[in-house]
Amino acid sequence: MLSIEELNAFFDREFPHAQLIVDEVGEKTATIRKVIGPSDLRPGGTVSGPTMMSMADAALYAAVLNEIGLVALAVTTSLNFNFLSKPSSDRDLIAKCSLIKVGQTLVVGEVSLYSDGKEEPVAHAVGTYAIPPVRP
Amino acid sequence: MLSIEELNAFFDREFPHAQLIVDEVGEKTATIRKVIGPSDLRPGGTVSGPTMMSMADAALYAAVLNEIGLVALAVTTSLNFNFLSKPSSDRDLIAKCSLIKVGQTLVVGEVSLYSDGKEEPVAHAVGTYAIPPVRP
Amino acid sequence: MLSIEELNAFFDREFPHAQLIVDEVGEKTATIRKVIGPSDLRPGGTVSGPTMMSMADAALYAAVLNEIGLVALAVTTSLNFNFLSKPSSDRDLIAKCSLIKVGQTLVVGEVSLYSDGKEEPVAHAVGTYAIPPVRP
Amino acid sequence: MLSIEELNAFFDREFPHAQLIVDEVGEKTATIRKVIGPSDLRPGGTVSGPTMMSMADAALYAAVLNEIGLVALAVTTSLNFNFLSKPSSDRDLIAKCSLIKVGQTLVVGEVSLYSDGKEEPVAHAVGTYAIPPVRP
Repeated sequence: MLSIEELNAFFDREFPHAQLIVDEVGEKTATIRKVIGPSDLRPGGTVSGPTMMSMADAALYAAVLNEIGLVALAVTTSLNFNFLSKPSSDRDLIAKCSLIKVGQTLVVGEVSLYSDGKEEPVAHAVGTYAIPPVRP
Repeated sequence: MLSIEELNAFFDREFPHAQLIVDEVGEKTATIRKVIGPSDLRPGGTVSGPTMMSMADAALYAAVLNEIGLVALAVTTSLNFNFLSKPSSDRDLIAKCSLIKVGQTLVVGEVSLYSDGKEEPVAHAVGTYAIPPVRP
Repeated sequence: MLSIEELNAFFDREFPHAQLIVDEVGEKTATIRKVIGPSDLRPGGTVSGPTMMSMADAALYAAVLNEIGLVALAVTTSLNFNFLSKPSSDRDLIAKCSLIKVGQTLVVGEVSLYSDGKEEPVAHAVGTYAIPPVRP
Repeated sequence: MLSIEELNAFFDREFPHAQLIVDEVGEKTATIRKVIGPSDLRPGGTVSGPTMMSMADAALYAAVLNEIGLVALAVTTSLNFNFLSKPSSDRDLIAKCSLIKVGQTLVVGEVSLYSDGKEEPVAHAVGTYAIPPVRP
């Protein structure tokens, strides 16, 4: 298990453009926050699909790293998204990830995305990550 | 059917940050190109997942708009991605979309992503779009 | 909301070959059970993929019907499965469904499948159902 | 590469209840046929979702086995389905699979399902298979 500080430092270094904040990590869980800025919005004022997708990917990645450590190189193999309702343009976007399976070669997790303070999710994702075999 | 100029003008206006070029549109097809820049790369030099996902979304969107027109408001309802191999960091990313079904309320399409000039796809996606009912 | 008896009668009539038992229904939830028989097994003694997929579909369907009523004709539009571990051949298969979104035209739900009595899920699914517009 | 006879013998042995016919196999492709019988139908006369899902799974499996051989134990890790239109109850169901990637540890393929003789697909699926490491 990693500290929030370690994960935030990792994300700042690996995803400098994403401006993500790791709010919480726990056993097989992670919560990520993003302050929505102009470049995340589409005309009309809703949060873009790619912003939601990159949040989901990052939340899964944080939860995976928290289980297997920062050294291992987990690779996303699949991501499945369902878009449920329009996110608010004036609230942070929150991604809550929960890992469903942590195997030796495969990790599967799900993510619910919320506009901060709202109860209904705006999107849901399921992702799988391949864990490369440990080299002796 | 729209012209490439109309679609490019639409993308420039709707997705000003994405820097996408519509290369081709045809019957139920669209091809999109993106020049990969530093903000699309991850440390180590591979193209980021979110860059690939936003390309796939945009190619589907171009093909959908080409079928139903720019006025209608198509909404992405689901996207399923499989990441197949590492894209080249020094080649344009190409997304080729082909619509599988164009119904009155639902459009389904698939996208293959390539590093320009390479034969093997780097990612594959299937997306569904809801078409809102026409208001009289 | 329907009673378990109503749902079981519906499944017996609509899916006579599936031999499913509705164990529980609640607000946006449903639990389905299936006694695993020889025709559900693959050589080697594990439960077949199609048996797991039909269980997930049925659990989603039960939860959807419980929200919208038996009259409405919900149509599955997409299903996404992740297979996590081998189910036991000598235990009932349990599918627990929870609806994520109940909209006017679209319902999205997730399902976890278990071998009865085991803690770790053997499969996970997310499904979407289209609800046809009410005719006046 | 296997012969159609080898694959049909394999399916008869492994999936005796499925009554599937391998029509064609080629380089990274396979076509499967199923005569639709009463147990494949739902009240109202359409082909059931589980029948379509098991067809897609089998077509992927045939294409995978044709690449890696009957000995290797490929395991389905994920399947994503989109249901496009109602299949005919009085026509054979045809599943055409094409592999997108054949890697050392992962195979990804797509399948289109048709009612025999119709041009528009009734369903589309993408599946991933894990290939266990070869034991020396």
